[in-house]
Amino acid sequence: MGKTAAIIGGGVIGGGWAARFALMGWQVRIFDPDPDAERKVGEVMNNARRSLPGLSNAAMPQEGALIFCETISEAVRGADWIQESVPERLELKAKTYRTVQEHCDPGAVIGSSTSGFKPSQLQQGAARPEQIVVAHPFNPVYLLPLVELVAAPGNDPRVSDRAATILTEIGMYPLRVRKEIDAHIADRFLEAVWREALWLVNDGVASTEEIDDAIRYGFGLRWAQMGLFETYRIAGGEAGMKHFIEQFGPCLSWPWTKLMDVPELTEELVDTIAGQSDAQSGAHTIRELERIRDNNLVAMMRALKSQNWGAGALLNATDQALLTAGGAVLDYSEIADIGAPIVTLDRAVPLDWVDYNDHMNEARYLQAFSEATDRFMEIVGCDADYIATGGSYFTAETHIRHLDEIHPGKRIRVTTICLGGQGKKMHVFNQLWEGNTLCATGEQILIHVSLQTRRPCDPSPLIARRLGTIEAAHHGLPRPDGVGRFVGAPR
Amino acid sequence: MGKTAAIIGGGVIGGGWAARFALMGWQVRIFDPDPDAERKVGEVMNNARRSLPGLSNAAMPQEGALIFCETISEAVRGADWIQESVPERLELKAKTYRTVQEHCDPGAVIGSSTSGFKPSQLQQGAARPEQIVVAHPFNPVYLLPLVELVAAPGNDPRVSDRAATILTEIGMYPLRVRKEIDAHIADRFLEAVWREALWLVNDGVASTEEIDDAIRYGFGLRWAQMGLFETYRIAGGEAGMKHFIEQFGPCLSWPWTKLMDVPELTEELVDTIAGQSDAQSGAHTIRELERIRDNNLVAMMRALKSQNWGAGALLNATDQALLTAGGAVLDYSEIADIGAPIVTLDRAVPLDWVDYNDHMNEARYLQAFSEATDRFMEIVGCDADYIATGGSYFTAETHIRHLDEIHPGKRIRVTTICLGGQGKKMHVFNQLWEGNTLCATGEQILIHVSLQTRRPCDPSPLIARRLGTIEAAHHGLPRPDGVGRFVGAPR
Repeated sequence: MGKTAAIIGGGVIGGGWAARFALMGWQVRIFDPDPDAERKVGEVMNNARRSLPGLSNAAMPQEGALIFCETISEAVRGADWIQESVPERLELKAKTYRTVQEHCDPGAVIGSSTSGFKPSQLQQGAARPEQIVVAHPFNPVYLLPLVELVAAPGNDPRVSDRAATILTEIGMYPLRVRKEIDAHIADRFLEAVWREALWLVNDGVASTEEIDDAIRYGFGLRWAQMGLFETYRIAGGEAGMKHFIEQFGPCLSWPWTKLMDVPELTEELVDTIAGQSDAQSGAHTIRELERIRDNNLVAMMRALKSQNWGAGALLNATDQALLTAGGAVLDYSEIADIGAPIVTLDRAVPLDWVDYNDHMNEARYLQAFSEATDRFMEIVGCDADYIATGGSYFTAETHIRHLDEIHPGKRIRVTTICLGGQGKKMHVFNQLWEGNTLCATGEQILIHVSLQTRRPCDPSPLIARRLGTIEAAHHGLPRPDGVGRFVGAPR
Repeated sequence: MGKTAAIIGGGVIGGGWAARFALMGWQVRIFDPDPDAERKVGEVMNNARRSLPGLSNAAMPQEGALIFCETISEAVRGADWIQESVPERLELKAKTYRTVQEHCDPGAVIGSSTSGFKPSQLQQGAARPEQIVVAHPFNPVYLLPLVELVAAPGNDPRVSDRAATILTEIGMYPLRVRKEIDAHIADRFLEAVWREALWLVNDGVASTEEIDDAIRYGFGLRWAQMGLFETYRIAGGEAGMKHFIEQFGPCLSWPWTKLMDVPELTEELVDTIAGQSDAQSGAHTIRELERIRDNNLVAMMRALKSQNWGAGALLNATDQALLTAGGAVLDYSEIADIGAPIVTLDRAVPLDWVDYNDHMNEARYLQAFSEATDRFMEIVGCDADYIATGGSYFTAETHIRHLDEIHPGKRIRVTTICLGGQGKKMHVFNQLWEGNTLCATGEQILIHVSLQTRRPCDPSPLIARRLGTIEAAHHGLPRPDGVGRFVGAPR
């Protein structure tokens, strides 16, 4: 794009802005008198470089240059966007704008990261008040899309429009706030919850961890995808938003928080809310919204499972209890018949494995085989403890026959046959079943490696011995259809 | 397990409890005088059956029987758990407990779904007050793990312990609330935000949709995985929680909400919070917490991308803009050299594609090839519009050579060669590159099908013509290494 952003104040927020602009291809000039600023911004940049580019399904532009400037004038000259993230003191911000406006392009956007001040407050005494808007982001700025874009009556609307266009270009969501108020929108909620949380800790009702758990195992997951009103619309059921407010409105005057001032639920206010909710979510029935919500929750909670964090860590712990009760083999000692294929996966197809053809996506077949092979590795002794000592198996080659479709919710099993287990090589043949229907086969060769050198090496004697035993026992099995097949070979 | 739950009140919440118990293998008996109860519970069951089993990585137990009872006595007799979810009227609950306790086992847990009442209120006038606890869940009960488990001084601690054990067994998270208070913990936050949101709508500051966007594009994503205090701990940086409170505490007395009563931030309270935060999160440095947070955010936001919802829908829109600027071919008309391999994927490896070996997981190689083949399908005319008319390609066979590791954040490209495109068959050979290094090859055969019959059929004339043209042009390319190879073939 060849555009330039000036970042005034390079803390966590300023650094986050710098990272987002730079990774979206902008040249970025930073002014911060802190002698440590370059190191601090560098750390934010490192976090951003490892997380943002892959978030996208497309290649990002060439990263823009990051230039640290000695003066504000040097930073802002010719810049298209100037982002002020200095501490929350009005007189400091006013002083900053004076210097900025002496040197910047009158057509540039000056955005303030303030979480509390109104734009009209920021504009007081400025040379060109119409140029200054609030552009309030959320940490981490390089990942979270929300920016509250707030203008005052004194603003040139073209500045806000230009700001919204640029924010969209750099992958953010400009929420144009209709009226300037202290703390804009989101921080009013954050403040209300923060106060309530302080009371709960103060009164010994809950610890910080218990409060976090009360959020992240429950309504936090709802809010991450639908927010407040759409969630409550579903709770109202087919009777809708009006019914929900009529049912739950009265609770508001119960003494349930320390925070007591409540708007009167006039018929007019109820109608306003119900009408806005219809405009927002009316394209979907409640039943559809429920399924959308559940799809989102399953996808997000499974994402957290893969990170073994929060609700995902909890689900993984529950899985452990289910696994011991299920049909899959978990440990070498549990193999009942060493001469039979080993059940290495036994699960239902989750909603997030389904694609536009409304069946399990082809890549999830390999995920199922991969998880089955992981289990087989664990059974022969290549478990998390072993991997921590520096040995593991890497897959070298895979052949999959997709024999039948599988639909979400269906229970699937994988059975594993060991075709070879000598030396560094492990050769397995996986079969994916739904009931008695063979839906796919997956033949794989894995190589044992050192995680230090990333080169092939022999596995531990225990693994070698167990693999050898299973290989010998599985030699007695009939050779399954599909072994050694190449793509397109005649049936 | 062979256990029995009695569900008294079968609305959205009671139905959710019924679904969770039944899917975890419990026999479930439901009492609800509503003549529509069976239909309503059936709808919740359908939602639960499609979403909960696949959430787990293990097979769930055999689903328990669901029995609708004519009387409370029939429902509760011999039950291990009795869950009361009747409307929020204290006298109705008291009446319900009288009947329940006349017929139930004195050792059973009686849990109330109340979101507002304290257990000591529920216990008033009960025959055995020690048996009644609050077990407050969150909608949808079959997916969200949180249950606020609240006891009163009059409770037998063995009842709470037993309740906690059972809730854990059915995959929930019993948050044991230390002191009974009105509305427990989570709903105090929900009430505080709800009041603030009503004010914002009332005052014309924001619409319901704008409020939802302010939550789900920003702090909602933070709260879903870390909650409030751990998020703020990170915001405090290396200086920690104490620093954060000292910096942001004063804002609390600013007029930023309608809700004004604030606890005094005594040194004691600050120390309590800082100490609890250390106990909760002190095992990780701030830098580690930042990376955990970013991993979680990327995984969750990518999960929402796959659902094309909320922050994920926004990211998909941004991708569209990036794609046109990137290196991949998007449309047949964009193919510059019909005789050259077509660039069908150009992206960075996201954090959620990485496994315990700290490299791109093998299944993600097939995901990359699958996305590349999807793009190739679009290019020849099998796009979303075409699929909506009832035709698509299903993959029949895949062969992958994993030639090199790929690490997160690295930019990868896939080039596609068409080896065959006659009739129903599409034969492609994908090559996955990092820079000039060939990291994997993926050979695939796909078959054109009717999405109605799910049987093979011919593609449209446009697709047939384009495929034929590309196949003929690609015939001039040297045959790539690896075509027609079987697993384990000598190099």
